[in-house]
Amino acid sequence: MIQKENITDWFKELQDNICQSLEALDGQGKFQEDLWERPGGGGGRTRIIEGQFIQKGGVNFSAVHGLLPEKIAKALQLPAAQFFATGVSIVLHPVNPHVPIIHMNVRFFEIDENTWWFGGGIDVTPHYVYESDAVFFHQYLKSVCDKHHENYFPKFKKWADDYFYIKHRNETRGIGGIFFDRLDGKDGFNRKTRFGFVQSVGEAFVPIYTQLFNKNNNKTYSKKEKEWQQLRRGRYVEFNLVYDKGTKFGLDTAGRIESILMSLPPMVQWQYNVIPGQGSAEEKTQKLLVKDIDWAGKTI
Amino acid sequence: MIQKENITDWFKELQDNICQSLEALDGQGKFQEDLWERPGGGGGRTRIIEGQFIQKGGVNFSAVHGLLPEKIAKALQLPAAQFFATGVSIVLHPVNPHVPIIHMNVRFFEIDENTWWFGGGIDVTPHYVYESDAVFFHQYLKSVCDKHHENYFPKFKKWADDYFYIKHRNETRGIGGIFFDRLDGKDGFNRKTRFGFVQSVGEAFVPIYTQLFNKNNNKTYSKKEKEWQQLRRGRYVEFNLVYDKGTKFGLDTAGRIESILMSLPPMVQWQYNVIPGQGSAEEKTQKLLVKDIDWAGKTI
Repeated sequence: MIQKENITDWFKELQDNICQSLEALDGQGKFQEDLWERPGGGGGRTRIIEGQFIQKGGVNFSAVHGLLPEKIAKALQLPAAQFFATGVSIVLHPVNPHVPIIHMNVRFFEIDENTWWFGGGIDVTPHYVYESDAVFFHQYLKSVCDKHHENYFPKFKKWADDYFYIKHRNETRGIGGIFFDRLDGKDGFNRKTRFGFVQSVGEAFVPIYTQLFNKNNNKTYSKKEKEWQQLRRGRYVEFNLVYDKGTKFGLDTAGRIESILMSLPPMVQWQYNVIPGQGSAEEKTQKLLVKDIDWAGKTI
Repeated sequence: MIQKENITDWFKELQDNICQSLEALDGQGKFQEDLWERPGGGGGRTRIIEGQFIQKGGVNFSAVHGLLPEKIAKALQLPAAQFFATGVSIVLHPVNPHVPIIHMNVRFFEIDENTWWFGGGIDVTPHYVYESDAVFFHQYLKSVCDKHHENYFPKFKKWADDYFYIKHRNETRGIGGIFFDRLDGKDGFNRKTRFGFVQSVGEAFVPIYTQLFNKNNNKTYSKKEKEWQQLRRGRYVEFNLVYDKGTKFGLDTAGRIESILMSLPPMVQWQYNVIPGQGSAEEKTQKLLVKDIDWAGKTI
């Protein structure tokens, strides 16, 4: 059986590879690493980049263990047993408003050899939605998913639509992607097949982001577009602080606060009652921030 | 007995008076008003200023009624009856980082003539804590409270310390002030005495802010101080989106979102792991963001 140590090692390597690729993409910024230890057991490697094109990016690895806090055990419907959890988490905020914000997470949780699961996903939050990018992104994810199980993409695409939703704004955080949790060993799956899928998701990050970055990073942008980017980042903050379960989990369990909140954008604005002009690119974007668009089924 | 209509009218006048004073203080900005109606009953007057010194300020009045949503009825331990609620809510974000953010709220809630209460408070969030300002502010609040009941200040000051606390940062939002809720007609109080106190709190806003504004608004500031202001505003956002009950209540009950989130600052930054220099003004401020400082008992 694949041991937690194998998964941990693979996640560490994934972090290394992604950091290397992102430094190459940025061409200037270098990741700064903070090693941290968790008082209850384990720790992590937080890596932050402030580059010429990636304004603020975090690529975090952690592997923690200990006694499951009662509150979380209850929420997960588990006994307050010893747990192990490891994962890689990424959020990148670009300088150029035409390049989207990207988020990826892959994680593994284990109580014992019978009680374990994988979770994760990739989703994209464009400041300006480009339909060809959205189609590319969803089709890429679909091809990754389809190699592992035909149900994965439709299920996990919908899961992302439902999860990355800002209820009080009645809009999605971005154009979605895939989100999954509690992929366990039931229904004919096992650690090997589940891990294989999670590895494919992790490996999809660099080609996806490279494409979205290269396609958009040379576009010029105006002050107005930069301002719109800062307003959209405000929505990102609203989602992460009000709804995101990972963030809430971290705040509730007194995790390393700077690693949890590395996802928050560098420069953000809130203005009162901004209404994009009729027919503007901003209005077009806003109209596309809805659930259940079949991006993968479109041809552009 | 003082009727809800009397309280409503007084709150409206308070909004008018405060807006007038703030326009005079700013010298340039004018409040823009949005009238809105609540589908379930009632509505409000949202007023926003973007001035030369007040970068973003909101002074909101609302008076709403209808059937108490079940979720809220449960939280308040009340039957799902007809309710009435009115209040004035203020948040001001100044341009100058030496001027503090100020927040005030006064509100009245009623089910029937036996089930009602007042709530509210004033608190201040300096980007840079000046001890003489903190002493002035707390002594002023103490003098307002002491005219009504000797227990008010100690009780409501502690309530503010406990309420305006960012647990995940282990720091207070600012230097506190007073916070109170459920001031009802029990223990020898009645509507008249409770309303009298709330009126005094409402009337304290202009003299308090005028003093804090005039004392600090002429100070020059550097780019570094402006950046620190934006980082401190980030903490303000964290508090309001993660902990503030009024905000949560508004988001949960699908209130008018732009009026609820008018409290969020105009321009905000999150940087990774900022640690103020030893002996800096920023470090001094951070050390003073703790509970239970007896500002009113100090002499400066």
